[in-house]
Amino acid sequence: MSPRRTGKKPSILVSNDDGIDAPGLDALVRELKKISTVTVVAPDKQRSAVGHAITMNYPLRVKKYFKDRSLFGYAVEGTPADCVKLAIRCLMDSPPDLMISGVNHGANTAVNIIYSGTVSAATEGVLLDVPSIAVSLTTYGEADFRPAAGFSRRLALHVLRTGLPAGTLLNVNVPAVKGSRIRGVKITRQGNSRWDDTFDVRVDPNNNTYYWLTGKLDVLDKTDDTDVIAVRRNYISVTPIQYDLTDYKTLRKIRGWKIPVS
Amino acid sequence: MSPRRTGKKPSILVSNDDGIDAPGLDALVRELKKISTVTVVAPDKQRSAVGHAITMNYPLRVKKYFKDRSLFGYAVEGTPADCVKLAIRCLMDSPPDLMISGVNHGANTAVNIIYSGTVSAATEGVLLDVPSIAVSLTTYGEADFRPAAGFSRRLALHVLRTGLPAGTLLNVNVPAVKGSRIRGVKITRQGNSRWDDTFDVRVDPNNNTYYWLTGKLDVLDKTDDTDVIAVRRNYISVTPIQYDLTDYKTLRKIRGWKIPVS
Repeated sequence: MSPRRTGKKPSILVSNDDGIDAPGLDALVRELKKISTVTVVAPDKQRSAVGHAITMNYPLRVKKYFKDRSLFGYAVEGTPADCVKLAIRCLMDSPPDLMISGVNHGANTAVNIIYSGTVSAATEGVLLDVPSIAVSLTTYGEADFRPAAGFSRRLALHVLRTGLPAGTLLNVNVPAVKGSRIRGVKITRQGNSRWDDTFDVRVDPNNNTYYWLTGKLDVLDKTDDTDVIAVRRNYISVTPIQYDLTDYKTLRKIRGWKIPVS
Repeated sequence: MSPRRTGKKPSILVSNDDGIDAPGLDALVRELKKISTVTVVAPDKQRSAVGHAITMNYPLRVKKYFKDRSLFGYAVEGTPADCVKLAIRCLMDSPPDLMISGVNHGANTAVNIIYSGTVSAATEGVLLDVPSIAVSLTTYGEADFRPAAGFSRRLALHVLRTGLPAGTLLNVNVPAVKGSRIRGVKITRQGNSRWDDTFDVRVDPNNNTYYWLTGKLDVLDKTDDTDVIAVRRNYISVTPIQYDLTDYKTLRKIRGWKIPVS
């Protein structure tokens, strides 16, 4: 069960959170095969909004996944982060030159980044010292993943050439419009937004209450240089992301706090 | 199913990721009841390492949870983030003055913060405009949660008085030593570390391979002002955390990148 690198092509690991049978993954793999040896290790089923979950209390099982009678990849009973850990630490003979997660069906901009399984796969890649990219298409409806997959290939070539700083991943969002309507690429920051959550409260036939999460994204910061606004204006958004969550400004402010230990 | 605030005591929402029956939660609630009206909304079972997962594709079910014949709280078939969303948006009549997640059984320092359900509950509190604190005890073995719970009460009083900047939560780690051995409180930053993951590969009786995640934390930055080192030196660590993940330094560097759109 060890995928092997052959020849001198770069080696790219691909994962996602929509599952190994997702069309966005398929489109991405097709494009990346033009420039690299691709290893697919992805969840066996949809794992959206799993955040950066990892599986510690259960073992992971892996199945070979075939398409058109040839091996397409490895399907893992686990989360996107599990897939990337398992691929790099166990399934692959040597670490890949690049890791790409996607193409996700739906935007991963603004606050959604913290809920995103797509981004968590790329974060896990970076934690394992592999330059990593998360790619999402900003629609939940019918989607043509080809423009996003094509851009991923070109960005992959760029990153394979220039590298990325250690500890940084790229979070890419591609507007779901015809390729010809895309206005360009913007390097952006994560927008400030929040979910205006509501719960749809229902009663089942046994008279038990249940709650469906619903709501809309409330964009608090409408500046042009944010991911949310860039994709709304039909730009491809590329945001460099890191995972030191320290709030340094507040750190300086509260340094003098005196809280009794006992 | 609407918990109600009575009198003029502050209202504190409590959740965790170890589940509503966890002793760390119980110890925290006992302490907080001395100063506030406490509402408990917690997962019905252990949900460790779930990251910032939310449940969108299934409905959430909620059960009243009793202890000693009186209502202790609400048990949710969902993640820590689900619990906090549901509590603030649906179950409580008005938002709490403070949200505390914990006391977690195990450290949430350094890179572990991104996997932590405990921290994700507090992040969700902040996203819903409630000052929030995550508290963890740095042991996986036998634990006395009382010193950590007592400190949580004192910190709660402090935060209720001073407030916290919007968008900032406090991530607290208490060393698992006798109260008298705790040397003080340090305001820290998130340490730089990584998991040196390995997978224990086994074969089941049906000859199928399975993989158990294991590994050890590799501390890359041993500076005194990090959370990891503070707790190792028997200080209580308090780290202010925020969720803008933009890597601004890299953003400035890569602004000039030219990647063709098509």
